[in-house]
Amino acid sequence: MTCVSVAETTQDKMVNSIVKALGVSNYVEARLDYLEPESIAGTLDAIKEKKDKLICTVRPETEGGKFQGNEDERIDIICLVARYKPFLLDVEYETLHKNPNMVKRLEALNAKLLVSWHDFNSTPDIKYLTQQMNAMSHYSRWIKIVCMAKTVFDTTKILKLYEMKDERDTLISFSMGCIGSMTRVMCLYAGSPYTYVTLGEDAIAPGQISVKDVKMSIDSNFFKTFNQSFYK
Amino acid sequence: MTCVSVAETTQDKMVNSIVKALGVSNYVEARLDYLEPESIAGTLDAIKEKKDKLICTVRPETEGGKFQGNEDERIDIICLVARYKPFLLDVEYETLHKNPNMVKRLEALNAKLLVSWHDFNSTPDIKYLTQQMNAMSHYSRWIKIVCMAKTVFDTTKILKLYEMKDERDTLISFSMGCIGSMTRVMCLYAGSPYTYVTLGEDAIAPGQISVKDVKMSIDSNFFKTFNQSFYK
Repeated sequence: MTCVSVAETTQDKMVNSIVKALGVSNYVEARLDYLEPESIAGTLDAIKEKKDKLICTVRPETEGGKFQGNEDERIDIICLVARYKPFLLDVEYETLHKNPNMVKRLEALNAKLLVSWHDFNSTPDIKYLTQQMNAMSHYSRWIKIVCMAKTVFDTTKILKLYEMKDERDTLISFSMGCIGSMTRVMCLYAGSPYTYVTLGEDAIAPGQISVKDVKMSIDSNFFKTFNQSFYK
Repeated sequence: MTCVSVAETTQDKMVNSIVKALGVSNYVEARLDYLEPESIAGTLDAIKEKKDKLICTVRPETEGGKFQGNEDERIDIICLVARYKPFLLDVEYETLHKNPNMVKRLEALNAKLLVSWHDFNSTPDIKYLTQQMNAMSHYSRWIKIVCMAKTVFDTTKILKLYEMKDERDTLISFSMGCIGSMTRVMCLYAGSPYTYVTLGEDAIAPGQISVKDVKMSIDSNFFKTFNQSFYK
């Protein structure tokens, strides 16, 4: 399963790209922080029939996003988006942790949250990652953890997280950066319900790969090759 | 199992680096093309007690090497190296294919060849790779195939080769480039007897990783995570 990240700066472009992306992908992540705040409601109205395939995100600059307004404005927009009942509403762990009132508002709206956390610089050790995952699961059983990989070992820590998770939780975790690109396919074999991809060749996040690359990689069925007993 | 690539420009540095590398690695690849030709015999004399842990290579510029002399000179040096009976003598497929007399000389010397082929620009399709592997096995049952990965799909083609090989053959195959770095660990699980690494952080080949990174990645035992049935 794939989720195309769509980041467009106008309502028309955003709607067109989402419709196009859903022609080849199971899900779409609408990066609403790329829009002017006043275009967000109109965009969601225009694609409300697709809401079951939509992951909505309003990222602040501190987590790699483009949202320009202040934090109260961003929280109001997130709560507005919740009213449209997308498949998942991606909200940063930090945001939820700092704003108990927002958590209550989202609960009252029955929002299906994807609680997310990004480290754009490094990958912490597995103990820290596990603690972080457990803390995040307080807010939702859908958890997204994405860290920058600088070594192959960094990628193994992220893949190891799938072993450490509570079986009731759904984890979406992979490594950013070029060394981590393979984890964007491997996460699907580890238990992630989907992976984030680009429609064309332009990556929104470092190391992000195309929907075509994911599909060709999965069709090649290369994991059949692996047998731990080979290793000496 | 790891093999540290050692590329030094003087006999003393080469010998010291090989001894140091064998303190932490099972094998060493001596990149003899980095030495002046007149230093090669002396270097091999100085490390002859380590010959069972030595993979010797005299790469031409056309396959990413530094050897400056002409091809006849390079062939004579390769045949000279064969007399020292290293664990493996890495000779390019093209070189063997073009020089039937050299093949006879190496056979007469009972050289244990690693027949190698590199594509520094791309990864051909699996059909071409399989044909290439079969053609290479004419010269030795130890085969090395290394290609540049530009997509995750490229890495899956290389890993797929382990399924396609004759069970009597020993294959060492992985992807170059940053996207391919993970295959330098994964190849060990697919059946490669060792993987090429650096002692420190400076990579000789694009995407090459350190001996420390390989060991930490393997210790993390991350392949336990994978179960194809997870994938929906």
